[in-house]
Amino acid sequence: MSKISGRNQLKGTVKEVVKGAVMAKVVIDYKGELITATITTDSVDDLDLKPGDTATALIKSTEVMIIK
Amino acid sequence: MSKISGRNQLKGTVKEVVKGAVMAKVVIDYKGELITATITTDSVDDLDLKPGDTATALIKSTEVMIIK
Amino acid sequence: MSKISGRNQLKGTVKEVVKGAVMAKVVIDYKGELITATITTDSVDDLDLKPGDTATALIKSTEVMIIK
Amino acid sequence: MSKISGRNQLKGTVKEVVKGAVMAKVVIDYKGELITATITTDSVDDLDLKPGDTATALIKSTEVMIIK
Amino acid sequence: MSKISGRNQLKGTVKEVVKGAVMAKVVIDYKGELITATITTDSVDDLDLKPGDTATALIKSTEVMIIK
Amino acid sequence: MSKISGRNQLKGTVKEVVKGAVMAKVVIDYKGELITATITTDSVDDLDLKPGDTATALIKSTEVMIIK
Repeated sequence: MSKISGRNQLKGTVKEVVKGAVMAKVVIDYKGELITATITTDSVDDLDLKPGDTATALIKSTEVMIIK
Repeated sequence: MSKISGRNQLKGTVKEVVKGAVMAKVVIDYKGELITATITTDSVDDLDLKPGDTATALIKSTEVMIIK
Repeated sequence: MSKISGRNQLKGTVKEVVKGAVMAKVVIDYKGELITATITTDSVDDLDLKPGDTATALIKSTEVMIIK
Repeated sequence: MSKISGRNQLKGTVKEVVKGAVMAKVVIDYKGELITATITTDSVDDLDLKPGDTATALIKSTEVMIIK
Repeated sequence: MSKISGRNQLKGTVKEVVKGAVMAKVVIDYKGELITATITTDSVDDLDLKPGDTATALIKSTEVMIIK
Repeated sequence: MSKISGRNQLKGTVKEVVKGAVMAKVVIDYKGELITATITTDSVDDLDLKPGDTATALIKSTEVMIIK
């Protein structure tokens, strides 16, 4: 089975999908926290993303800042 | 008080800090899930990040991919 | 007071806000240079961003390329 | 002459270069503000980046967050 | 002639341009593979990008994940 | 089988792996073009990446700039 280098893979449930002409917003409920992804509307259609789906947010470690 | 546009802010506890010459790895325990950030070693020093600290992972929505 | 690991924080004045269905454009005048950010329309609404506001562009060092 | 889609191009003077095994830090003085980029050490060598060089920081608009 | 630190520069032919209010999709045919970029509609207009153009996809190495 | 929203997936052969304390460089030969990724050394170890492996470079469309 294939593995992805991206360190952060947060599995949750799709709560909301909003599609624009090019970009779409996908909101995932992850342990009670809402994670927002903006991906292409093409990707939303390809993955057939809709509320209620189980989905994983994938985030490369270089994209994470820290607030303290 | 100031607000940040970044949609995703996951507050947890710093578990591990590894410093290289330029980049450092910071691992945050968020509700039992480990979130990895790679930031500059300068930032680790500026924020004085160390295990046990309360810290928030900040992620822009454009950086989040979805796996389904 | 909280600190952010993101190395680059450029404070200026909002010049223009254009909202699309999902993404919005925010232009900040920073020392006479225009800095463009594309963030979610949700964030624009949450921060109530509008021309004339003082605002800071936050950029992680890993996102900066160099041209010479 | 070629043009780049990246909206933000800040021209300044290289102040500091620190090379690690894989990643390097390059600091550019832009109108008195220090802009930090982390790029590969390979790129630093290819561009022969050194203090005193004129160089431009290139930043895609999707990588810019806003603080207000 | 100027050089860019971004390691990955994939030269191909523009196949498709779709413009939204803020963001646009540009698809480049690169060695038979379609590369999709989402950039601002402003950038599409500035570069006058249209099908048939020769264009290069520029990607920073920190933005590339690996699947194995 | 799972699908990833990331639009750009370039399958090739690993040519070089250089590991630093935190970050590593992985070079993939894709149809004669070298694609460079900088990922964590942890990921290189987890995926057991080494020259000769078949591997795919995964790139989100929002991370792609265009030069014309």
